[in-house]
Parts: sequence; structure tokens; C-alpha cells
Amino acid sequence: MVSFESDYIAGAHPKVLQRLVDTNQESLSGYGTDKYCSSAKEKIKKACDAPDAEVEFLTGGTQTNMVVISTMLRGNEGVIAAKTGHINCHEAGSVEYSGYKVMEVEQYEGKLKAKDVDALAETFYGDENHEHMVYPKMVYISHPTEYGTLYSKAELEELAAVCKKYSMYLFLDGARLGYGLMSKATDVSLHDIAKLCDVFYIGGTKVGALCGEAIVFKKGLRPEHFVGLIKQRGALVAKGRMLGVQFDALFTDGLYFEIGRHAEEMKEKLRKLFIDRGIRFFIDSPTNQQFVILENSMMEELKKYVAFSFWEKLDADHTVVRFATGWSTTEEDLKVLEDALNKVM
Amino acid sequence: MVSFESDYIAGAHPKVLQRLVDTNQESLSGYGTDKYCSSAKEKIKKACDAPDAEVEFLTGGTQTNMVVISTMLRGNEGVIAAKTGHINCHEAGSVEYSGYKVMEVEQYEGKLKAKDVDALAETFYGDENHEHMVYPKMVYISHPTEYGTLYSKAELEELAAVCKKYSMYLFLDGARLGYGLMSKATDVSLHDIAKLCDVFYIGGTKVGALCGEAIVFKKGLRPEHFVGLIKQRGALVAKGRMLGVQFDALFTDGLYFEIGRHAEEMKEKLRKLFIDRGIRFFIDSPTNQQFVILENSMMEELKKYVAFSFWEKLDADHTVVRFATGWSTTEEDLKVLEDALNKVM
Amino acid sequence: MVSFESDYIAGAHPKVLQRLVDTNQESLSGYGTDKYCSSAKEKIKKACDAPDAEVEFLTGGTQTNMVVISTMLRGNEGVIAAKTGHINCHEAGSVEYSGYKVMEVEQYEGKLKAKDVDALAETFYGDENHEHMVYPKMVYISHPTEYGTLYSKAELEELAAVCKKYSMYLFLDGARLGYGLMSKATDVSLHDIAKLCDVFYIGGTKVGALCGEAIVFKKGLRPEHFVGLIKQRGALVAKGRMLGVQFDALFTDGLYFEIGRHAEEMKEKLRKLFIDRGIRFFIDSPTNQQFVILENSMMEELKKYVAFSFWEKLDADHTVVRFATGWSTTEEDLKVLEDALNKVM
Amino acid sequence: MVSFESDYIAGAHPKVLQRLVDTNQESLSGYGTDKYCSSAKEKIKKACDAPDAEVEFLTGGTQTNMVVISTMLRGNEGVIAAKTGHINCHEAGSVEYSGYKVMEVEQYEGKLKAKDVDALAETFYGDENHEHMVYPKMVYISHPTEYGTLYSKAELEELAAVCKKYSMYLFLDGARLGYGLMSKATDVSLHDIAKLCDVFYIGGTKVGALCGEAIVFKKGLRPEHFVGLIKQRGALVAKGRMLGVQFDALFTDGLYFEIGRHAEEMKEKLRKLFIDRGIRFFIDSPTNQQFVILENSMMEELKKYVAFSFWEKLDADHTVVRFATGWSTTEEDLKVLEDALNKVM
Repeated sequence: MVSFESDYIAGAHPKVLQRLVDTNQESLSGYGTDKYCSSAKEKIKKACDAPDAEVEFLTGGTQTNMVVISTMLRGNEGVIAAKTGHINCHEAGSVEYSGYKVMEVEQYEGKLKAKDVDALAETFYGDENHEHMVYPKMVYISHPTEYGTLYSKAELEELAAVCKKYSMYLFLDGARLGYGLMSKATDVSLHDIAKLCDVFYIGGTKVGALCGEAIVFKKGLRPEHFVGLIKQRGALVAKGRMLGVQFDALFTDGLYFEIGRHAEEMKEKLRKLFIDRGIRFFIDSPTNQQFVILENSMMEELKKYVAFSFWEKLDADHTVVRFATGWSTTEEDLKVLEDALNKVM
Repeated sequence: MVSFESDYIAGAHPKVLQRLVDTNQESLSGYGTDKYCSSAKEKIKKACDAPDAEVEFLTGGTQTNMVVISTMLRGNEGVIAAKTGHINCHEAGSVEYSGYKVMEVEQYEGKLKAKDVDALAETFYGDENHEHMVYPKMVYISHPTEYGTLYSKAELEELAAVCKKYSMYLFLDGARLGYGLMSKATDVSLHDIAKLCDVFYIGGTKVGALCGEAIVFKKGLRPEHFVGLIKQRGALVAKGRMLGVQFDALFTDGLYFEIGRHAEEMKEKLRKLFIDRGIRFFIDSPTNQQFVILENSMMEELKKYVAFSFWEKLDADHTVVRFATGWSTTEEDLKVLEDALNKVM
Repeated sequence: MVSFESDYIAGAHPKVLQRLVDTNQESLSGYGTDKYCSSAKEKIKKACDAPDAEVEFLTGGTQTNMVVISTMLRGNEGVIAAKTGHINCHEAGSVEYSGYKVMEVEQYEGKLKAKDVDALAETFYGDENHEHMVYPKMVYISHPTEYGTLYSKAELEELAAVCKKYSMYLFLDGARLGYGLMSKATDVSLHDIAKLCDVFYIGGTKVGALCGEAIVFKKGLRPEHFVGLIKQRGALVAKGRMLGVQFDALFTDGLYFEIGRHAEEMKEKLRKLFIDRGIRFFIDSPTNQQFVILENSMMEELKKYVAFSFWEKLDADHTVVRFATGWSTTEEDLKVLEDALNKVM
Repeated sequence: MVSFESDYIAGAHPKVLQRLVDTNQESLSGYGTDKYCSSAKEKIKKACDAPDAEVEFLTGGTQTNMVVISTMLRGNEGVIAAKTGHINCHEAGSVEYSGYKVMEVEQYEGKLKAKDVDALAETFYGDENHEHMVYPKMVYISHPTEYGTLYSKAELEELAAVCKKYSMYLFLDGARLGYGLMSKATDVSLHDIAKLCDVFYIGGTKVGALCGEAIVFKKGLRPEHFVGLIKQRGALVAKGRMLGVQFDALFTDGLYFEIGRHAEEMKEKLRKLFIDRGIRFFIDSPTNQQFVILENSMMEELKKYVAFSFWEKLDADHTVVRFATGWSTTEEDLKVLEDALNKVM
């Protein structure tokens, strides 16, 4: 059945897979010391316009969040996140498992506001009486957020300024970064992110790779003995080539951006199908995840023709569901959805 | 250059890779809930003759060791391991990072002796005065060991008996299990292991997969909320299919054993090259890792023709090096080694 | 200077201290195995009317919270607490350090509402789709709260019912329990608490001891190997007598309740001093901590005569300050305060 | 019954207790900010001849070891200890619970040898290939050791030199330091220890206090936000005066050394009782713990008259037992022991 359930329903983008096939027989050294890892790192630094950055590869998003947070923070430092932030809700307490507190602040369609962060940080750094508390030392944002929304460049600049004011790290979770960067609604480029964030990651798993995320540390911020630290967390892959080859492919001839652009196009067409039929959106998302409000009986009917994700109950008669596009979404898929919508309305 | 450096120098076995290619476009649900994971689990249970077992997939060996140990132990329980055990030496303190103590005992060519385990356990369980100590609750063995050696069936039975005596879990690290099972020198079958161990894993990364290990829990021993626990440790893969498809391929038509058999054959031929030339072995390993003693100047010469791994210095004039075979080792590779040996001797 | 800064400004209640002096020369076994620990445990069980309960002694409140939570929870379980709960705000991230998530809910003058707890638990236990989340498994309340407020018996019963509904533990932090139990405004007895809570502690440090808290576990809920677990957390005291003797004294001839009663009486007189002068309260606290709103210049004047604690700024011209009574508060202290108030108003 | 079971069988030294009594009614600020903590710190720095040192107080030995190790180490760093070191054997895995590995080396009557430490460190720091291992970053020694033995000044200097060579911290566990410093057999002074160690602690619990240990950090080595870090570990005492007053008393008029001297004298007389009767020692301990080999039936007889500790079984007919002296040991106690020995021999 045609599926819009998520952006990780299919395998790797064909060009990524082909590179795995092409390089499969080569003898390469392990643990990320191979030439494809090196090449991918260089291409990423170039794409970021950040020659001094340091790039590292990990397998998945939760792992990356946990590694970044638990290797950059110390002692009684904590990380500020939106109430709805992925680390606060859907990572099974991974940050706390690694010993650190997630400090909730209010969210606005999944986003933080700089003034809230400032207010929280001020209570800690404003005077000297807070040694019994957790010190906020990092601000975690996701871009796109869990609701598909995006920060504007001005908003990112404000957050970066607050972080700078209190010597906190700004950490951007880019699990779906490709879709954010290619949204028609954004004024934020990869260069901006590399400039404004202290550390961020470029998501692979949800943007065309089988698995893999690329962390980009600003110069000097990669924790010492990083290989040992990720080994210790069970996050070091023996055949590091698996990640290097995939990111090398994703950053060759702009494939990463091409995937984002394709999903954006498919998303626009998908939105139109709903808009044309007067179906409301739960949130006005400018990226590949679309949250749609369906009347329950219609939702049940629609399920017979296409797959999508349950998000949450809105009221007794309506449900919020998610449709996602990705590298594998086709015009044919959209036609199937169109026909299905026509049948159930 | 032809390389014998390790058993993770190449990508995936061609049949494994082909299955990834064949299934790449399918829409599958995430986090290990897809049909390939299910199918692979069934095949593995069948191969183990353990219909009640529970199988789970993870990405790599250190991760698997940490997950198994830290989810099965509680509080002040600890895990007994050989001084040379991988968890004690080469996993960057991963077990301790997760809060548990590795309790060293003597090693004999990488193996534990049941009597040493018994003696250690006896000091704890023998009387009631040890509440200030760590309680040994698990025995970790690797098979093959870090030196390529193997337990005999009788030795495994003795260890299992000691574990039963003190209600400890017997945990077998099978990162290279395929090579052990297919060694001509072994009397231990996969059935034996499934019967004698409380938990063990079937290594994929070093036996033909790009990545992946399959944990086999004896009935009732898989920790509750296991998905949450591995998510919490950053070990849950979004595209779980990546692991399911690979293990499904490895356990189709006996591929896993076929890979082991091939490496065993290549290993026998490789050994002969050394034996014929009077080159000594550091340890008499019956599996795919061979530890050879080379005179230093000859070693330097040999490096120019083939790649192998440094293991340790033996004395001022000699070095122990490792040659490993695997699924990708060919007769041609051995010919290159033969020629190289002829040149340098 | 006469001080109302807190309820831990003085040493031990004279009767408690005297018992330490009287027993000082006795030879007693260590680590809580002495006769005073046994005797104190029996007296506490009797005072609780809970003959099957299990009592354990620890040194301080944060330690006790961390020990209870981290030994009763497992894996990806978490603890629900009010936004203002001590474990969420003023324990330097101790719960997270031990690996567990504090799950914030709204607070009402420091208290939780059963319906909010129910709603949060329902999202987790309501269906089977939440394995990527933290499971709420414990509800933490403080009684008196951080604002001096108290739960009514009906409120405690409602919370207990919600906990039972979802198989969660109800844990009551009684750091200031003596003051709560003796409040004229309460309808909650120690028997009620022992009946309704799965685990709670009777605070000593702030109610007449030099240090010490007594945990009361409902039958069967004390974690196995508890001595080992507290040793592991650095919380086992070699001279366990120090805690046993103090609690034995506190629970001899009702001293614990007598201390509470005295502080309550002093508190009533202290309140009257403020009420008579038209000074407003920030919160209407029925226990020994009183939060008073002072005009800033008057506050500065008052500081010259008596000591009290800064709590928070209310607005540009007013500050919230805390006055606390305790075992050591005397009529003379109150007279000094009265004179001081007369001078500054 | 007269007891030689341990050095923590009695309460506090009378002078220490008296100071608690004398200061009990004073109003003092909490959490270690009172004047007695300050005064005690100054006196300790003076006794150490280390004006730049930083002193902190904690409650007990295991807590102190865990706090020092887990706040000074980072990531995949570990601590070297003797096989018989207290942190390796009798602290319920506290160091591992806090995430760090104890790296065992051989012991010689409880002591480490500098050459063994050097050899272990060399394997890690000798080349660049060890990022999958734990880095030794601290050396833990106890002085006196668990067997009552002492390092000579030359041995400490050698250890300090090895630590310096590899930039490792030398950490001395002085739970029984007073007894070591006053041993007639030692050439090591408190000044020497303060000069040679990066961090050490002066044990109070076993040397005259009810509880309490004083950590001495070399200038600049106290971890940042130390109060927050100990709060986070449940180790911050609300009535910090309890520790400050006791140490202030211990370091007034040389009481700490006086206690050591008394125990040493008692120990000499106790030894003579055994020597005169031809009773053998298990280890030749120069401090207050004496390990004596008793024939089993005689041991059972002796138990009827005086109390002592079981240490370990030597053979079928003999047992090693421990007799300890301390501040509370009297000439009368020794007379009782003498009479008892006369009865059973």
C-alpha cells in the first residue's frame, strides 16, 4: 500500500545505495578512519562553508542527541529544550539516562522563544545563589521541529545571542535538516546554521540514508577523546565506511539538497490535495511533515487506500494524522492519495 | 593492497548486499517492526532450535555487550569476565559507564575456567557477609575469544553448571560466532550454545553484514520494555529493516554458516603458508584470527606487500601480528601472501 | 542575631543531643546493625501503626530522594513531580544524575492535583504506543510542600487512587513532616500517610536531629540488597548509631510530635505579629515556613535586627522573604522580632 | 563486652562531642557556610602546611572516594587501584556506579608498586592506538592500606613521580590517616602527603569523629561548582556545622594526632600480648589494625570474653581475625584481653 507514514519508510536513496554497492569490495580500515569518511567530512565542511569545523558520524538521531549532550555537558549542567522537544518526549529518557537534566520551557508550534530562554538562564546566572540547582549550559532546538515548523534566521540569531550572553552552547537537531533547508518558506541556509550554532547535526536517516547523522562541531568544541567517548556509549561502528560512503554520496553533486527539494515539491502538491478539499491543517507546517485534521469516519475509510500516521485525538469526532513526503514519494503516490480522497469525501 | 588486517575490512557479503538492494524500495514500518525483522527472528530461532527464545537486533558488538549487561543486571550486581575479555579491555569502559563493575578473573589463552568462576562466586554467595561488595550475577565469555580460541562443549557445560549453581546468567559474546561454529576443531554447535547460555549474540558485523548483531535471550529473560531500554541507550535504529534484511539474508540457505566455512578453509590454507616456512604462532588459534610471530625486519619487509595488524611486541626483535580471514578472503589473496612470504624469507 | 532563616540553623534538640552523649561510650556494631537503630525502627513502625513496614535511615533529604527514586525505579521509568518540587528545582539534578527523568506537572501553591497526574499517566498507560517515552512509575509529593502548604486527607486519597490505578508508587517527601503533622490546619495523621503512601520519609534534619531521615517502605517494597545499594551511592554511614540514637530519641515519649507542636505554636504567634501590622503573606502557609511580602526599604531596616531568608523579588518595590520556626524558636526570639517590627514600621 | 572489632565501635572522642554540645544552640548558616567549617579548613591547611589547598568536608569514606573520583575524572578515564583497594572490593561498586572503571593492579600487602603503575600507564600513553581503552588518569592508594600497612616516603615519591610523568592524579584515601601518621614505623608526615598527593582525605569517622572526612585538594584541583556536584550526589549536609565543628575540634591543640598516638600506644601493647604468647600475625601491620592467626577452637573460646572481627579463613584449622585499637581503647580493655588470652591458652 502506498504509504505517507514517515520519511523513514523506504531504504536508501538509489544513489546512496549504489555507492555502497560500488565500494563494497574495497578493503578499508575500520572505525571511521577510511577515505570515504575523510572525503565526506571535507564535503560537509565545504557545504557548511566551515573549514575549521569538525565532523563526526553516528548512526541515529537519539544516539546523536545523547552523545552530543552527554559529552559536551559536565556535572550539574543541563540542557534547555521545548516541552515538545524530541529529547524531552520521545527518546525514552536518554539524556537523563546519561545523567543530565532536560530543562523544559514553553513551546510555540514546537519552537523555543529567545526571551523564555533568556528568562530561565537569568534565574541561574543572574546571581550567585544557585549552586543547588542545575545550570543551563546548552540550548537544544530542532529544525525542522517535531511539528515541521522552522525558525527564521532572525529567531536563530536571537537564540544564538542569548546563548552567547550566558556562555551556553546552541545545539540544533537537524534530523530532518534537508527538508528544512529546501522549504520555500525558509530564509535559513546551511551556512547560517554552521555560523550560528555551536554544534548541530545533518540528518541522514530521514533524508535518504539507510542510517547516519553527521555532527558538525564548531572549531575547538569537539570533546577530547571523542572516539573513546562514543565507543563507551556503544556508538562507534566497526565498518565506519557504512556512514562515510553514504554521506559522501549525499554530499556529492548536491544530492542532499536535491532530496530536500524533491520532498518539498511533493509536499506542496500533497498540501494542495487537502486544501482543495477544505481539509484543515492542525499546524501550518512549511516542511515535509503535514499534520491534517480528519473526521474520524473519513479517516477510517481513507486508511483502506493509503497509509499515514496517527498523531493525536483532537476531539471526540476528529483526529490529527501525519502525512510525510521524502525522497521516495512519487507523483504516482500522490495520484493514489488523490483518488482515495475523492472516494472518501 | 591485499589485506588480512581484520574481518571487517570489506563491506557486506554480496548476497546480504543484494537483499538490501532488492528490498530497498519497499515501504516498511520502522524501529524493527517490519516483516524482515520478523522473518529473520524466526529463522534464527529455528537455526538455534530454540522456538521459545526471543531475538533482538542491535548495530554493533560493544553496544550489544553494554545493552545486554546493563539491562539484565541491577543495582550492585556485576559481571565476571576474563582479564582479556573484550568488555574489560577494548570497549572504553562501556560497562562501567552504564554503572556496572567488570569483575576480572584469570584468563587462559583468552578463556575463563569454571573453577575460577566458582571460587569467585563462592566468596560472595558462600555466606551472608558481603553486602558491601558487588554481587557477581553474570558471566561473560567470548567465543571465539579475543585470541581466536574456543571453548569445548565440556567447558561450556561446566561454566553453565557454575552459573546455575549461583543463579548467574551465562552470556556469550559471539561477535565472531560464525567462525567458531565452523572451525574444524570445535565440538560446539549453535544448538549447544542456545541450550547452555542464558543470553548470547550472533555477530553479523564481522561475519558478512555491514553492521548488526542478533541477541538471543532464553525464554523469559528478555528485559521488560526492551524497546524503551535500547531507545534510551541510543541503540534503536529507525530503519530497523537494515538489520532485519541482513540477518534474514544471513540465515537464508545457511549463508551464515557458509561464510564461516569459507573463512575456515582460507584460514587453514593461510596457516599452512606460515607452518611450511617455520613461522611460529603466538597462540594456537583454531579460528579465523591467526597470531603469528615475525622477526621485526622481516615484518617490515612483508608490510610492503600485504596488510596485517600489529598485535603486540614480543621482545626486542619480534612482534606478534594478526592475520584474519573472512567472507572476502580469496585464493588470490593467499597467493599474494605466499609470494610475499617467498620474497621476504 | 536572632534568626528565623530556616529550620536548620540550630544543632540538635537538647534531648536528642543528650542521647548521643549518653550512648557515646558504648561499643556498638557498625552500618546500622546496632540496637538503637533496631529500637528506633520499632518505635517508628509503631508510631505509623505499620508493623509490616520496613524502615531505613539515611543522612539527608536530597540523598533520600535520590536513593528512593533510583532504587525503586528501573530502566525508562520516571517520576512525576510538581514544577516546584524539590527534586525538580533544588537538588542539582540528583535524580537525573542517577539516570531517571523527573516529569513536571503543574503546581498549585506547591501541590500536585490528582487529575493532572491522571491525565499524564493516561497518555502513557492508555494505549500501547509509548515505548519511546519515559513511563511514569512514581509520583513524588512533598508534605509540607516547598511553600509550606499541606495536602488534605481527601487530596492524598485521590493521589493514592490514581497511583493505584496505574500501578505507580506514591512517594512522600517528609523533610518537614513533623511540622505538617502538628499543623492545626491538617486532617492528615502519620497513620494516614503510612497507609496511603508506598514509601515516605520522616525528616529528622529539619525537625530536631543533627542529621537523618527515616524512610518507611510499605511491606515488600524495600528494594532487594538495600544495604548494598546505599553503600554504592555513598550513603551508608559507618557509625550507623548516629542515626539510630537520634531517631530513637525523637520517637521516645512523642518528642518528634512535641517539636512539631512547639514550632506550630511559635508559628501562630509569629503570624500574628505580621497580621496585626497588616503585613501580607505571599502564600497562606499552615506550617512553620511563612512567606511574607515586605516593602524593600522596610526589609533592609528589619535585617538590622533579625535574620530571615530572601525568597524572591515580587516587584520593583517588594520582596518575598521567609521566616521559619523550629524546635529552637523561643518566646524571646519572637519578642525581638516584635520589637524590631515596631521599630521599622 | 570489651570490643576490638573496629575503630568505629564507639561514638565521638569526648572533646569532639563536647564541641558539638557547646555550639549546639548557636544559629549558624547551612550547607558548610558556617564559621566552624571555615575555621576547621584553616586549621587543616595549616596542619598540612598547604595555605593554597582547598578543603571540603563529606560524611563518609565511600562517599568521599566516589565524589573525588567521579568529579575529577571525565569520560573514558579510569582510576588505577590495588586489587585489594577499598574502592575495588568493599564499596559495592560505587566508582562504577558513578560511571568510571577501576583498573586493577597487583598488590603487595595492600600496597601498589610504582613500577606496576608505570607499566600499566605506559601501555596507554606509550602510543596513539588506545582510544578504545580506558585511560588511566588517577592512582588511588590507601594509607594505611586495608591491611594496615604504610607506604614509605620514598615509595610515595616514586608513585608521585609516575603520576607526574603521565599527568595522572595521585589520590590518597586517608580513612585511617591519623593512625598512619602516628605509627612509630612511618617516615611520612602530613606535610609530605599534602606535598606529594594531588588530592587526599583526612579520615574523621575512624579517628574520633561521629562522621566526617576532610578532602584536601591541591591548589586549582577542586572541581568547579563543587557544591553543586556534591549536592547532586546526595552528599551535601544541611547542617554543615556538624562536620565543621568536629574537624575544628580534631584540629585544635593537635587532638587528631593525639588520638593517633594513643591508638598507636594501645596497639603496641596489644601486639605484645600476642607476641608474648607466640601468636602469629597474618601481616606485619604497623598501625592500629592487627591481623592475627588463631587456631579455630581457641578463637571460639576467646569470643566468649572479648569481641574482634572475622577476617578470612586461613586453612581448615586456622582463621585470620582483626583486632583494632582506637581513641576509645583503654588499658582496662587490654587487661581484659590479657586475662582472656590467659584463659584460652
